[in-house]
Formats: sequence, structure tokens, C-alpha cells
Amino acid sequence: MRTSLDCIPCLVRQALDAIRLITPDETLHRSILRTVLGWSSEIDLAQPPIILAQRIHRYIRELTGANDPYHAAKLRLNNLALKLLPEYSAKITASDDPLMLAAQLAIAGNVIDMGVKSAVTEDDIRQSLEECLSGPVLGMQREFKDAAAKANSILYLADNAGEIVFDRLLIEQLSPTRVILAVRGTPVLNDATQNDAFAIGMNYLVRIIDNGSDAPGTLLSDCRPDFIKCFDEAELIIAKGQGNYESLSDVERPIFFLFKAKCPVIAGHAGYPVGSYILTRSGQNNATGTIAAGTP
Amino acid sequence: MRTSLDCIPCLVRQALDAIRLITPDETLHRSILRTVLGWSSEIDLAQPPIILAQRIHRYIRELTGANDPYHAAKLRLNNLALKLLPEYSAKITASDDPLMLAAQLAIAGNVIDMGVKSAVTEDDIRQSLEECLSGPVLGMQREFKDAAAKANSILYLADNAGEIVFDRLLIEQLSPTRVILAVRGTPVLNDATQNDAFAIGMNYLVRIIDNGSDAPGTLLSDCRPDFIKCFDEAELIIAKGQGNYESLSDVERPIFFLFKAKCPVIAGHAGYPVGSYILTRSGQNNATGTIAAGTP
Repeated sequence: MRTSLDCIPCLVRQALDAIRLITPDETLHRSILRTVLGWSSEIDLAQPPIILAQRIHRYIRELTGANDPYHAAKLRLNNLALKLLPEYSAKITASDDPLMLAAQLAIAGNVIDMGVKSAVTEDDIRQSLEECLSGPVLGMQREFKDAAAKANSILYLADNAGEIVFDRLLIEQLSPTRVILAVRGTPVLNDATQNDAFAIGMNYLVRIIDNGSDAPGTLLSDCRPDFIKCFDEAELIIAKGQGNYESLSDVERPIFFLFKAKCPVIAGHAGYPVGSYILTRSGQNNATGTIAAGTP
Repeated sequence: MRTSLDCIPCLVRQALDAIRLITPDETLHRSILRTVLGWSSEIDLAQPPIILAQRIHRYIRELTGANDPYHAAKLRLNNLALKLLPEYSAKITASDDPLMLAAQLAIAGNVIDMGVKSAVTEDDIRQSLEECLSGPVLGMQREFKDAAAKANSILYLADNAGEIVFDRLLIEQLSPTRVILAVRGTPVLNDATQNDAFAIGMNYLVRIIDNGSDAPGTLLSDCRPDFIKCFDEAELIIAKGQGNYESLSDVERPIFFLFKAKCPVIAGHAGYPVGSYILTRSGQNNATGTIAAGTP
């Protein structure tokens, strides 16, 4: 997916949020913002927006020496989600269609995204879960169910800390022996890394790999070879979150994207209203980006 | 008032809104955005944000040849507001405190601001009027009333088209013979110019001058000498809107600012919550900008 002009003010704001979270030093805030604005003025719009996001967060880490600025936030988000887990796990057990309910909850969990909203509360998560359960998930539920029934191997691309707790519910329904879970290689934003997967006990359920990259998505050109091997061999890929959608929506592999459309550019690109809970497949998007570019 | 780092993504977004309103030419959108990002990376943060806004809108006009891109929007907004005028005029006539009710309506009318929200509807205006009438105006109402009772000459700095209709209600209550109304010298955003003042019949009520500037506020260094003379001689200055507040809040003159705080930076600077309807005086703000800079 190309970068829309609308992504730029949003990424500039994201850079400001991120640096403020790390340090109160206003000289550093100014200096980082000026650098990001300079980069933005020369951005290659043919690339997905997470290329600039990756560069911003890498630069902030280098400049501040904070290797994992969202560490505390990620712990908090994992714990918030773990607190809600038993209640929603019980709903799945009682459901007529546990796989699709679990998918729905995994999509709802995607509300936990500090790139979009810095301060996610327990209320935000609960509200998203209830909202998602009460309304329809838009997209290709039947196709997803069929693909999940057939696949011998599934690569599950996690997105954020906290959210990964709800991914556990879906992975439990997928017969975990055929699933490999992939997380980011290096901390970036509140994206889930190996530490988060272990912190919520995912290692008792599935094999965990990291993609070797510090992009807040999955830039294949930036991922380690053993991740690429898994990616190429998997019969089904489940990709969570906007960052994975941005970077993989044009890739010709059997990828299903599960996310909440939190920004107008991505919602427009996928062809659904902002705020939708979406389950869609690679190659289904408006790959020219014209909807995205025209979105106010 | 200094430019906060938070103003920058907002101004970048504003530039994008403005150019899209004028032309569907995406090459031009990209080129203007890149230029604005370049300027932003070198911005002098000691200046008020409207310096960059002025530069952006001047550049867009030059590049597109559109001298008054908001012309049609301003006509629409004036007509929307004129439609509501009789109803609210009657409320003032029936009021125990017509001056303060008129001031309240003039503040509520400040919701009509295309720099903040491109598409203002009749519902937005009506909602703002009702919300403002049902809640308190925050600030210095008694001081304003006293100052208005004493002043022999009042300079009234208008803000936006549409909004200027509600300014008429307040000017009627101020004994118009002592009032001069000042508008922007050149079209910028949906700010009111001489044409708008005439279009809504303000010329039958007061003397109208223009400030000679194309800034979406009142940058004294950019205003024509005869405007400055009126500004220096007026015993009371009533300044509408965020742009006038940004540019004049530190000026040592008897200025009362009437506006809706639509952005966190200005709300923080004035010391009130976002969304407040504010009546405050020059020199009352947090002139160091520290609240503004810390606002999320």
C-alpha cells in the first residue's frame, strides 16, 4: 500500500507522541520533529507508510538510547488484557461458533494500538470487545473459515502487546500444533515482541519466531531469511493489525487480515468505513490507493 | 503566542485540506505538501502559528491562481447564519441581559472555522449556539461588561464569514456609533473580508475597515498604518476567534478575546479546557506557552 498524503501529518503527530513519552526534554522534541519533517518533505510515496514509521522510531531509539520506550506500556497492556481473558474465554467455550467468535475477539483486540491512540484504557478495550461482538465483522468470514479448515500450516503474524492476549484465544481454536506465531524482531511502538509472547504464555501453546525487523508491520525485504521461509511455506497466513495490512495487502500469498480500521486511509484502501472490524484477504484491496488518496 | 510543536501536524493537515478544496490535481497536492513540510522543518517556533498559516495559504493562492478559494464556502456560511439570525435576534430582545447574551452568541458563532473543520453544517452552528447558551462562558464577563459600558471607541476585529452574522448581534448591543469593524485585508481561509461584511449588511450599522493583511489573525507588523492608528486609539478592542487570540494575546492593549477553544494548544494557553466558550483579556494568558507545549 502506498503512503497517502494524509499519512504524513499523522506520522508527524505519532513521532511527537513517541518522543514525549520517552523524555520531557523539549530541545529533543523540537530536534526530532524538525528531522521528521525534513524526511517527510522528501518521502517516497510509493512505499507503505510504515517505512517512515520505522525510520522515525528507529531514530528516536538511537537518539535517546531508549531501546524499548514502550516497555512499561506493553506490560500494562498485557496485564489489562490478561485480566479480561477468562471472561471472554468462557464466552468462546459457550459459543456455537467458537472459531469465528475467537476471530471476532482477536479483531476487537486490535483496538490496542499506541500508534493511533497513545493512552489505551481498560474501558477502551472492553468497549471495543463489546462493540465488535454486538456488530458484524465486515469481510470474508466464510472464506476465512474454509481456509482455516484446510490449512496444514498457519503462520500467525501478531501485532501489538495486549492485543496478543486475544490472539491466544484464536490460536487455541485453530489447533495450535499447525500454528507458528511471528512477532517483531525489535521493539517498535507497542508492537509485540518475543518478550510479550512469553509474558502471556504463548510459548506453552505454539512455536514462536521473530521476523528480525523493527518495522511496525511486516516489510518482507527487511525480514530475516528463516522468517521468509516460514512465510513462503505457510498454507495460510493470518496477519493482525493495520501495520501488517499496510505492508502485505498487495502480496500474493493466502493472507487473511484481521484488524480494526482505525484510520480513514486504511479503511478507504480496504473499502470499508472507519471504525469497521475487518476480516479481508490479500489482493482484495484497492491497490491503486485512489480511495485512500481521496479520503478527507 | 509561540508556535507549539502540536501546531505543526495540524497546519500540515490544514494545507492539505485547503489545496484539495481548490483542485483535484494530486501532483499539486504532493508538491504543496512537500514545500509546507520543508518550511515546517525550519519553522521559527517563537512566532505565532498563523505566520506559517499565512505563508501556506498565500503560497496556495499564488500557485493555483485561486485568489479566494473559499469564496463559495463563505457565501454558504453567511447564508446559513443569516437564516438563523431572526430566531436568535428575538432571544436577545426578550433577554434580561441582552449584551451578555449577544456576546455569548458571538462566541458560539466562532464554531464556524474552516481552518479547524472544513465542512461546517447548519447543524454544527445550531448545536454550538445551543450548547453555548446552555452552559457558562468561561472568563471575565463582568470585566467585559464594565469595559463595554465605559469605552468611547471600540474596535471590533471580526474573524470568519458566517460567524460575522452573530457579531452583528453583539455590535447592535454595543451602540454601533462608537464601533469600527475591522476585517482581513485579503481573502485567507474562510476569514471575513469587506465583501462578507457588506454581504450581511454590516455597512448599514458601522464603519468598516480592513487590516491590509492576509494573515488569518491580526499580525500588527503586517497591518496597514490606518488600521494600526485605529488599533492604538480604540479604548476597547474586541477580538474574535483563535487567530486573533494567537496573534494578540501578548499585546498590551485593552483587548477582550471572544472565541471557542477548538484546539488543545490554544485552550491550554488560555488556561481553559478544549471546547470551552471563552471571554478573556490580553495579558491573562500563560504567555510562556508551557501549558500549550505540554498539551497532548
